[in-house]
Amino acid sequence: MASKRIVAIGGSDAGISAALRARELDPDSEVTVVVADAYPNFSICGIPYYVSGEVGHWSDLAHRTLADLKATGMQVRTDTLATGIDVTGKRLVVRDTEGRAEELPYDALIVGTGAVSVRPPIEGLSGPDALGPQDGVHLVHSMGDTFGIMQSLAARSPKSAVVIGAGYIGLEMAEALTTRGLQVTQIEALPEVLPTADPELGAVVHDELTANGVEVITGTQVSAITRDPAGDILQVRATGPDGRTFTRGADLVLVVVGVRPDTALASAAGALLGVKGAIDVDEYMRTSLPDVYAAGDCAVTHHRLLGKTWLPLGTTAHKQGRIAGENALGGTRWFAGSLGTQVVKVFDLVAARTGLRDHEAGAAGRGWTPATTASRPDDHKAYYPGATPISIRVTGDTSSGILLGAQLVGRRGAEISKRVDTYATALFHGMPVDSLSELDLSYTPPLGSPWDAVQVAAQAWMSEHHLDVQRRMLGVF
Amino acid sequence: MASKRIVAIGGSDAGISAALRARELDPDSEVTVVVADAYPNFSICGIPYYVSGEVGHWSDLAHRTLADLKATGMQVRTDTLATGIDVTGKRLVVRDTEGRAEELPYDALIVGTGAVSVRPPIEGLSGPDALGPQDGVHLVHSMGDTFGIMQSLAARSPKSAVVIGAGYIGLEMAEALTTRGLQVTQIEALPEVLPTADPELGAVVHDELTANGVEVITGTQVSAITRDPAGDILQVRATGPDGRTFTRGADLVLVVVGVRPDTALASAAGALLGVKGAIDVDEYMRTSLPDVYAAGDCAVTHHRLLGKTWLPLGTTAHKQGRIAGENALGGTRWFAGSLGTQVVKVFDLVAARTGLRDHEAGAAGRGWTPATTASRPDDHKAYYPGATPISIRVTGDTSSGILLGAQLVGRRGAEISKRVDTYATALFHGMPVDSLSELDLSYTPPLGSPWDAVQVAAQAWMSEHHLDVQRRMLGVF
Repeated sequence: MASKRIVAIGGSDAGISAALRARELDPDSEVTVVVADAYPNFSICGIPYYVSGEVGHWSDLAHRTLADLKATGMQVRTDTLATGIDVTGKRLVVRDTEGRAEELPYDALIVGTGAVSVRPPIEGLSGPDALGPQDGVHLVHSMGDTFGIMQSLAARSPKSAVVIGAGYIGLEMAEALTTRGLQVTQIEALPEVLPTADPELGAVVHDELTANGVEVITGTQVSAITRDPAGDILQVRATGPDGRTFTRGADLVLVVVGVRPDTALASAAGALLGVKGAIDVDEYMRTSLPDVYAAGDCAVTHHRLLGKTWLPLGTTAHKQGRIAGENALGGTRWFAGSLGTQVVKVFDLVAARTGLRDHEAGAAGRGWTPATTASRPDDHKAYYPGATPISIRVTGDTSSGILLGAQLVGRRGAEISKRVDTYATALFHGMPVDSLSELDLSYTPPLGSPWDAVQVAAQAWMSEHHLDVQRRMLGVF
Repeated sequence: MASKRIVAIGGSDAGISAALRARELDPDSEVTVVVADAYPNFSICGIPYYVSGEVGHWSDLAHRTLADLKATGMQVRTDTLATGIDVTGKRLVVRDTEGRAEELPYDALIVGTGAVSVRPPIEGLSGPDALGPQDGVHLVHSMGDTFGIMQSLAARSPKSAVVIGAGYIGLEMAEALTTRGLQVTQIEALPEVLPTADPELGAVVHDELTANGVEVITGTQVSAITRDPAGDILQVRATGPDGRTFTRGADLVLVVVGVRPDTALASAAGALLGVKGAIDVDEYMRTSLPDVYAAGDCAVTHHRLLGKTWLPLGTTAHKQGRIAGENALGGTRWFAGSLGTQVVKVFDLVAARTGLRDHEAGAAGRGWTPATTASRPDDHKAYYPGATPISIRVTGDTSSGILLGAQLVGRRGAEISKRVDTYATALFHGMPVDSLSELDLSYTPPLGSPWDAVQVAAQAWMSEHHLDVQRRMLGVF
């Protein structure tokens, strides 16, 4: 086999994973990664911990150093912008910081352009006089954004901040700024924080924020951010659930309301877009363009329960990138699909989910009749010191009895993040809720129970939704 | 359906689980549990934590109180010894503490007589002058044993102890007595502590014991325990790997070298015995006797990878008991099988395993060609404070690529016990090692990595044992 020329666009999870996999599988492949900024293979998920001060230096956020990457035999071209794809000629057009253009020939191209922050329709965030980092108003997505925030923190010594948005990153940034000593107000448009979980669990996170001094305002839409010329203070205007408008002054404002796929390059080259405007790919990560793959946040996500969706997660980007890298070499690796497994630490609390929530399953159009059961089993035997309850919500299909999803919230140390993994692995295999009791899980009193909390919650679902079925099978009425 | 009369023998995991399940499924069933001592539904696994002082009162060790059990509608007859099974007449003969016999009629009987401590062939442990609790020499299995130990601790104020055996309970007791301030010497006949794990991991546990002040002596056979009449001190004589004999004095000696199934009752009634002399049962928990089931430590264990074996574990006893209780009502529930998943905390270390080790898989006679790969991925991103490496050994079949087992050792807090559960769930489904990379596991920097440690270790196995296969498939040589 002649050595293949693989070019990956994007220095984040998908592009680097693709490049690493190609180099691992074929030491003769010529692999080049084109990176728009100077920060290949940085952990975007780690930004809150650099802002908080828990990570000492920004360079620590690199999964691998540039030297590590080069040691695998790949080329990494930093500060290089991909400006066009010549699909017919199989060339990627790039431009360096000095404006010099170059064409990189490829046998296979992997697009991993990622996502960009959504800039919500808030007065003060757009137009010629839009507020920005120089005013202490920040988006949070890239290393560039991060340096802007750190500069604001250093230059302004802010005492207070408003965080707009209470999703994963919003929550982590609220914690980070609180850890730095700022008084934080968190404003969420939806009725409860962590809107990706059921509000019963969001409320537990809400309480944790409040207990740690964060002012949490939910069901509230921010309409404007202005700069008070007198005091150099930012004013955030918002409207609460009662329709009343109020303002909060702050020295710093973070806008963290989500991301959208960055598809401009692929789209201009003619790639079909799919769900939520992400680049459409099949399970092999192939776009509609010949020999062009896409992976990560810029591409659609195959979900094991929902089919094609868009669900940008670092874990998924790693998997998709790895597959794209293998298939770019001529492989036939199939992306098995996401389950939307996620976890977030908020102060001393951990919240996680996998699979579908009740309303998501109901809306999926798969004929499910979902039901959700809440339970609060202890993380380990109550007689051993330090036991804490885990709030678990198990969702299953009452018709077939199969597991559809699980959500967990509990204290840090209660092994929430790896307990959700047991559900995720069960979901991966389409297990009935009942069968979770068959799993041979580990037990020692300081760390679990003879029926693990994961199984206790499944048994609670069975008792509520399937005991009658089981009784009928036994002839008990 | 006429209400069924179910009698369960044994107040530990299997008997109580059977009774609970029967009562849950059929509120009309008449369920009686016959308990030889006064302690139904006690957590035997919790004994070390009562001895250590971490559990304040012995009664806290009950999974459920007698009142809890009775509230389910079951009868619990404590201090009642089952003395015979009238299989033809379907009656269980019992005797109370005053010697009064009674016959309990049953429609279905569940034998959950458990296991008894092995009394090793050590001079001083048998014969008419055998040393026992009154001398400060103890076995560790029942609540009675526990009270004996506590009495010795109170009466003798021992300064030193020898623990014979370094399996799970031996390790936990060594920690417990150290926590109480005793100087502990632990003697293990095999070459390394925790002999149920590979010696490379046992060595890590060994170091943790030593670091916490336990004197650990391995490869050493204890031959005698004697009482020094002068100083009221026990002398433990042992022979080391070099063949030299030595003695250790101690105020207290615990003998924790394992258990054997307690099958006298079932065997006398004609039940066939199987592996290691345990009561033979099929996957429905049926013994060879009509309408007689057995579950828990007294019965053989169906293992998903090995077939019939004997592997006494509380988790398995709960599962088997629950199934026996359902089938006693006329159900057709099948025990899906054990994977031997186990975890132990030793001071600040946690060690866990599931499935098979290399030599176990090789000896299984299933045509596997096992290989094991060691790796040390961090529990979470190294840039976030507190990351610690987890020593993971993944065993897979090099022919088929399927996962056969995993062993993990790491610091407490590294979510070892729930990480082994991901492997256990993967094993349950017969996953290839390669497919572990397809699992959608959770990630946040303080608690994991984009590829969880579980997946990193699987990828290390693949790189070592299957990269050539993957390359061949791609046409790369």
